[in-house]
Amino acid sequence: MSNFDRLIEFIRSEVNKSLKNLKLPNKPTYLYQPIRYAIDAKGKRFRPILAHLSGRSTNVDPDALMNISLAIELLHSFTLVHDDIMDNDTLRHGKITIHEKWDSSTAILAGDGIYTLAQIVLNDLPENINKISKYFNKTTLEICEGQALDKEFEHDKNVTEDMYLDMIEKKTGALLGASAVLPAIYNGEKGKLIDSYEQFGRFLGKGFQIHDDILELTADSQIMGKSLGSDITEGKQTLMVIKARNEYPDKWNDIISSSGNQEQFNNICKFFKKTGILEESRSIANSYFNYSIDILNNLEGVNTYELVQLVELIKKRNH
Amino acid sequence: MSNFDRLIEFIRSEVNKSLKNLKLPNKPTYLYQPIRYAIDAKGKRFRPILAHLSGRSTNVDPDALMNISLAIELLHSFTLVHDDIMDNDTLRHGKITIHEKWDSSTAILAGDGIYTLAQIVLNDLPENINKISKYFNKTTLEICEGQALDKEFEHDKNVTEDMYLDMIEKKTGALLGASAVLPAIYNGEKGKLIDSYEQFGRFLGKGFQIHDDILELTADSQIMGKSLGSDITEGKQTLMVIKARNEYPDKWNDIISSSGNQEQFNNICKFFKKTGILEESRSIANSYFNYSIDILNNLEGVNTYELVQLVELIKKRNH
Repeated sequence: MSNFDRLIEFIRSEVNKSLKNLKLPNKPTYLYQPIRYAIDAKGKRFRPILAHLSGRSTNVDPDALMNISLAIELLHSFTLVHDDIMDNDTLRHGKITIHEKWDSSTAILAGDGIYTLAQIVLNDLPENINKISKYFNKTTLEICEGQALDKEFEHDKNVTEDMYLDMIEKKTGALLGASAVLPAIYNGEKGKLIDSYEQFGRFLGKGFQIHDDILELTADSQIMGKSLGSDITEGKQTLMVIKARNEYPDKWNDIISSSGNQEQFNNICKFFKKTGILEESRSIANSYFNYSIDILNNLEGVNTYELVQLVELIKKRNH
Repeated sequence: MSNFDRLIEFIRSEVNKSLKNLKLPNKPTYLYQPIRYAIDAKGKRFRPILAHLSGRSTNVDPDALMNISLAIELLHSFTLVHDDIMDNDTLRHGKITIHEKWDSSTAILAGDGIYTLAQIVLNDLPENINKISKYFNKTTLEICEGQALDKEFEHDKNVTEDMYLDMIEKKTGALLGASAVLPAIYNGEKGKLIDSYEQFGRFLGKGFQIHDDILELTADSQIMGKSLGSDITEGKQTLMVIKARNEYPDKWNDIISSSGNQEQFNNICKFFKKTGILEESRSIANSYFNYSIDILNNLEGVNTYELVQLVELIKKRNH
């Protein structure tokens, strides 16, 4: 294990510890049991890790950094709990989703509670709460917009690649941008540095999401901890779907018109491979990863070595 | 129209104007159309009116007061949108509920967006944001707890009057307490005054909720702008239901075992009247209203005349 890998493992375990130590009452069970269930799920914690590495690059106070990281992870968890209801997803991080294990009402309320906890954690910052809180809430609204676009786009055959890229920038890019920039905002940084950190995170987020769409098709569902491929049959847009629809309209129509079973899923994967659409998408994801590294390399006066390493790690992930 | 009535009308119209003027993008339609729909609904605006009158009693800056009031009303609106999904309610303020007009996913996301807007409005306060935000988020978590208890209590025949009173203190009392105390917190008041304002609002909230349960049975559904009585057949607890179950177990069992139609609804109303349970509950609501006035009367150095008038107005409401 390299030094960097050890660092990542250390941050992840510290984040998990802090999430576990988050003081929650036991009652009402209806509220706190599913909240505990969601918070204790084995997430990859990429966002808090990104926030920690970003904060290390500008020497942010570690305690404040943990507050920011936890609030970000809680915000992320809240969106997952609600998105899973909206998308009828039954598996997340290898665990049954809340609305499936309990019911939709329980999951709605648990999500509300988790977002409220994110705000409460932010309120515990020793200073600069207002600036951080403003950015945090602006980010949440943008994520809501991204989720709204994702829902609007379902089964819409007129969605273009640009519309898709705009949607994932809001849905995924905004929170990675926030994870990258909030520590710098907390430290009182201004101007170009702030813009660069945000843009770095947004590019990373777009690469991350396109890569994620590919993993939905190529990864092992047990390793991914969620059911795969269902997004496409449910009319979700990805770069690959849009390319297939535009470049091979008849063929694509045939494939998705068949019933949504394992055979169809296999046919979709084969089709994306054969036509080169899979490779093309992978290369677009890599461009975004490379853009994000370019931004880091152009930054002066901060040590971005660890952030570059993180991009490389994310780029290589296979689940 | 009395001076006081004119004041209330003025505040209500100013609150409505500020809600209308809340700058929202038009797109994505999926997010902002239902949010606009919820915000523009004709609510009674009791909570922002309470906040305004409370702030007038301690001379809070009117602009800050409007920020606090709007955030409170938005928080209230968010809880209604989500509660209506959880409780399958189809009518609210005389309008079809969001999950019924669109669908549950739309309503979940709209609620999330409205709560985020509440936070954004709070962030615009010129000062004391941290203190206000802390109290605001603590209140939201308590409201979530109240809603959790409300859901837990459904169809539970062991719920006592004390458990019910605790539930409504969280679900309704906490937000009226916040409406009453946040202006004073903003003004930097401390100690007894803060405790008194909060307690005043909580008592008012409990009276308000018990009164509301009675109006569910006795008011005109068209004037109330929502379908009435369905709560009881859906197993919701009210003081009257608990009293009936404890004092007349067999009779009550007969009544609620019949099919949930208009006749059953009429029988429930008649039963509560005949047994005196309706009057008893009304008198408990009035006790809470009176407690809240007692607290105001014991406050020194602040002019609570308008707040007392507001309690009298709420006590007399028939829809």
